[in-house]
Amino acid sequence: MANIGLALLGARPGNVGGGVLAAFEAAHDRYSAHVGRTLELRHILVRDASTPRAGVPAALLSTDFDAILADPEVHIVIEVMGGETPARDYIERALASGRHVVTANKEVMAKHGADLLATAAKHGVRLLYEASVGGGIPIISPLSRDLLANDITAVTAIINGTTNYMLTGMASGHVDYADALAEAQRLGYAEPDPTADVEGIDAAYKLAILCGLAFHVAVSPDDVARQGISSLAARDFRYADALGYAIKLLATARLLDGGLVASVQPTLIHRDEPLAKVDGVLNAIQIEGDLVGRVLFQGRGAGPGPTASAILADVLDVARDIVAGRQPTEAIQRRAVPVHAPGVHRSRYYLRVTVADQPGVLARISGILGDREISIASVIQFETDEDARTAELVITTHQATGSALDTALADIRALDTVTEIGNVLPMAG
Amino acid sequence: MANIGLALLGARPGNVGGGVLAAFEAAHDRYSAHVGRTLELRHILVRDASTPRAGVPAALLSTDFDAILADPEVHIVIEVMGGETPARDYIERALASGRHVVTANKEVMAKHGADLLATAAKHGVRLLYEASVGGGIPIISPLSRDLLANDITAVTAIINGTTNYMLTGMASGHVDYADALAEAQRLGYAEPDPTADVEGIDAAYKLAILCGLAFHVAVSPDDVARQGISSLAARDFRYADALGYAIKLLATARLLDGGLVASVQPTLIHRDEPLAKVDGVLNAIQIEGDLVGRVLFQGRGAGPGPTASAILADVLDVARDIVAGRQPTEAIQRRAVPVHAPGVHRSRYYLRVTVADQPGVLARISGILGDREISIASVIQFETDEDARTAELVITTHQATGSALDTALADIRALDTVTEIGNVLPMAG
Repeated sequence: MANIGLALLGARPGNVGGGVLAAFEAAHDRYSAHVGRTLELRHILVRDASTPRAGVPAALLSTDFDAILADPEVHIVIEVMGGETPARDYIERALASGRHVVTANKEVMAKHGADLLATAAKHGVRLLYEASVGGGIPIISPLSRDLLANDITAVTAIINGTTNYMLTGMASGHVDYADALAEAQRLGYAEPDPTADVEGIDAAYKLAILCGLAFHVAVSPDDVARQGISSLAARDFRYADALGYAIKLLATARLLDGGLVASVQPTLIHRDEPLAKVDGVLNAIQIEGDLVGRVLFQGRGAGPGPTASAILADVLDVARDIVAGRQPTEAIQRRAVPVHAPGVHRSRYYLRVTVADQPGVLARISGILGDREISIASVIQFETDEDARTAELVITTHQATGSALDTALADIRALDTVTEIGNVLPMAG
Repeated sequence: MANIGLALLGARPGNVGGGVLAAFEAAHDRYSAHVGRTLELRHILVRDASTPRAGVPAALLSTDFDAILADPEVHIVIEVMGGETPARDYIERALASGRHVVTANKEVMAKHGADLLATAAKHGVRLLYEASVGGGIPIISPLSRDLLANDITAVTAIINGTTNYMLTGMASGHVDYADALAEAQRLGYAEPDPTADVEGIDAAYKLAILCGLAFHVAVSPDDVARQGISSLAARDFRYADALGYAIKLLATARLLDGGLVASVQPTLIHRDEPLAKVDGVLNAIQIEGDLVGRVLFQGRGAGPGPTASAILADVLDVARDIVAGRQPTEAIQRRAVPVHAPGVHRSRYYLRVTVADQPGVLARISGILGDREISIASVIQFETDEDARTAELVITTHQATGSALDTALADIRALDTVTEIGNVLPMAG
């Protein structure tokens, strides 16, 4: 029987492509046995074929995507280049030429997933993207299949390992943001330009992908409200800890009155919650469904090994379908839903406010909050600077809408006794 | 287009069958939309059709399995009767008659899964059993598909909610076994005859099923070494806690030198491990693979809702295959592997020993352990009974084989200064 031909787009050593190549080489015979046909890697698309690459057969290297597409023996294209361009174009052309595609590309899937899935359906092929969220943690497939009987009510996730590593360091070592970032960069967990991670852009891509599957709605990453972690101070973690909470960069989404509420924000989460205990570079995704209750999926969210695990699972699944002559099933239709303005969502809040250390300040702040019907749950005066005659108040509120809080904060900021509103963070649950 | 016909075997209200019926009724239209064809429940097999059942159409009730099989409009048989007989027979006959089968039956799948999967393959139909392990937690499908690229090195799981609820109570409330069992029975978490739960039989069924998928080996529940939880005393939890450990009924399996080591045992697990934090009726399954590292799946392991979530996911999956005309892929071949005797496995151990409170006792015990090349990691004298002139020693060891330890324990038991060997438990990791 004919082999099943693969083409790999992207192969930087030490990166995802390198992880796929290493795993494929180590377990090639086992994979072929699982599939019942020999898997044959026929092409590796690289930018510069003259760069020497250990363990990569030079004869497979190519810089010409068209030549790869022209090979009729290629059945599955594996895209691990990353970035929007030219990956999106290559994926689309591979699908349109009747090739199945397996991708790890969160940016392309978040921005163009719906269109590309439609292209795949039109051409009778599959587009699989388990590796695009949560590294090796199975989550795309469980949402697509195993939790399908549920009305999914909420997605709550830690899906950026870089920031979770930094926040874990800030929580345990009492280091500030700049030190945590420097350490993450030193260890290779953070990029030289850390924007995509620390501003929640990466997590927003992944959350948009999860929303499409969980709620069967079309979600753009622009629909996700974002707040980065750079405003967090070491003392926010101390204060949260004193209140019984951890601070995590939580990606959360739910359908509310038929509209979507989705955000990536540093969030206080009670230390008894499973997500509060997810530390270091680990990722975890919690799904709430009407039947299943809460299920949690946890593991390493990045790295060549975990990502290769997800990519090769998709490859084996497609390859088994090819061998069995199985055609793809129809995709589940996605609905367009309105996106709620961030201010509509109700949450409890943590406020850190620096005030003049004098009588009556708290009365004025609580008066302003009360005028907006925001109830105070607790107030703790944590630190006093005797020289500056200031004190730091940490206020937690009961449920309030974001817009009510914003209006109140504007009034509080205008008080002459308020030096600074240091941080405002939602509290989960 | 013709409907997709379903038959449900078993429908006790408040039980799994009731959960399936309630979910099916509530979400019938959504399910049919996902599938692209109307799902039609045509028969419900019950023992006594004259029992009134709220919300169950009396016209669907039947006590005659043959009559159900004779209906050519039945495409999928859902088995939620539980127990080995007659469920196994019904599943086999449904498969042989060309019907797809979805089952929640851990006992049948653990004892007869390999044969029944072969029957399904022979007749070109699918046998799905996501609900048989971990309730609504996706684990069968992730092992079958999402982690398939990995060489799975270990399965470590808390897969019996009854005992986990009891152990959590014993750990936090300092109640003893009998009180914990009485409370679990009062709340309906434990059966009047709790044997299957507290002796680890239920967990051994589930572990045998997981081993088949994780290692592609044929495993019988008899291959799983079992130790129940009835020997645990409240003070074991206090002592473990002082050492930094929780005690959980862990189901563990790994391949070692080409042979299987599988056990269900109360086990000390360090409190920093994710599984140590899985409390109450929650279940959690940790899979270790060469690519993915450790991934954890956690959720409610029982109950009508979670179990219905898993069963209906399988039903939707089969139904979508029927609509697309997709034939099953070939099952992955399972190998026969030898089962290691329990004594071969190396572990660290926790020993609680009651001894005469006099000099030289520890020297004699450590001498015996040393003779068997078992190194002591720590010794703590926890409690002394001055009237009886006894003391309680808690000894933890470094890695030792079970057989070396058994030999040493026989010698220790024979010492005239040793009153009792209270408990011997493995320590994970």
